[in-house]
Amino acid sequence: MEISLMKELVFGHKNPDTDAIVAAKAFSYLENKLGADTEAVALGEPNEETKFVLDHFDEPAPRVISNAKDEVEAVMLVDHNEAQQSVDDIDQVQVTHVVDHHRIANFETAAPLFYHAEPLGCCSTIIYKLFKQNEVEVPAKLAGLMLSAIVSDTLLFKSPTTTPQDEKAVKELAKIAGVDYETYGLDMLKAGTNLGSKTEEE
Amino acid sequence: MEISLMKELVFGHKNPDTDAIVAAKAFSYLENKLGADTEAVALGEPNEETKFVLDHFDEPAPRVISNAKDEVEAVMLVDHNEAQQSVDDIDQVQVTHVVDHHRIANFETAAPLFYHAEPLGCCSTIIYKLFKQNEVEVPAKLAGLMLSAIVSDTLLFKSPTTTPQDEKAVKELAKIAGVDYETYGLDMLKAGTNLGSKTEEE
Ligand SMILES: [Mn+2]
Ligand SMILES: [Mn+2]
Ligand SMILES: [Mn+2]
Ligand SMILES: [Mn+2]
Repeated sequence: MEISLMKELVFGHKNPDTDAIVAAKAFSYLENKLGADTEAVALGEPNEETKFVLDHFDEPAPRVISNAKDEVEAVMLVDHNEAQQSVDDIDQVQVTHVVDHHRIANFETAAPLFYHAEPLGCCSTIIYKLFKQNEVEVPAKLAGLMLSAIVSDTLLFKSPTTTPQDEKAVKELAKIAGVDYETYGLDMLKAGTNLGSKTEEE
Repeated sequence: MEISLMKELVFGHKNPDTDAIVAAKAFSYLENKLGADTEAVALGEPNEETKFVLDHFDEPAPRVISNAKDEVEAVMLVDHNEAQQSVDDIDQVQVTHVVDHHRIANFETAAPLFYHAEPLGCCSTIIYKLFKQNEVEVPAKLAGLMLSAIVSDTLLFKSPTTTPQDEKAVKELAKIAGVDYETYGLDMLKAGTNLGSKTEEE
């Protein structure tokens, strides 16, 4: 594959959860609207819950990569920052952007960068705030994906990491997506427990 | 001194420059407006340039601290993140907020935090953007201090790190402060070279 000097890859952590997959899609969409040339990829296949989400909103799974530097010189990280959770050759590309909601550790850059972290329940909540700050509209399908990520990370607001901002984001995104987030959210969480793939009779 | 469980100290790096002093004052002001209880302090005395700035706007120099954990459990960093540039006992307090425009290195937290970095010419430019995002008005005196920090870090837009956002911020802050930023900025930069403290005849 040819190395692109301009294009950047956007991805979440290894063993991706729904937030890692969705936050990459959402941040890539936002950055492209703001003039960047990015592609959302993933460091692994979607899990059962994420497959349910992508199926529900008729969205393809992102391309899986195992290294970055053969394709690009620079990358954007979402939903993680620690090197051991990132692409194997992370030390050989420039990290230009990070959006995250975790502690910072094992992370170092040679140059200044855009780093936006907040102690919220979900990375997709932060990205939703960035859409608003930049006055970029969230398309209905992406709104559905983002509310799925927030419901997933917060276990439908039951997780102790949930903040009022996460709840507010889900309610606003549900309106855009036209989704009953409580019914849908429970179905989604169930799919993640593998119950979803069994029949009623089992 | 008694340890405050709620209050947080806000400070820039050791050997403070004008941005380190001003960004601490500006971010502390913003955080207090948003409901926090913070005090802007410094890790050293102001240099000649910063003294000129503080004199000009009739603003006191911040209190100088040499350790944090005797006073507070948590701190906010501006204009730096690397441990060796920070307060000596940085590893013994919680860092809850960072606003910076440098690379990230030698920085690690145990918990999620608010971290906002952008590759701009000055930390005070980023903080000015945070005032706008949070719809908090910048008082005239603080506007004067903040434009001083941006003029200092960008050498009146001559530094290669200058971005259009730094220039825009100075122009907007100059209006708020009622300052001719070009004349004032040159006087300020001159004061930093120590020429300012000599008489015309020397
Ligand atoms: Mn995750
Ligand atoms: Mn997450
Ligand atoms: Mn500085
Ligand atoms: Mn600075």
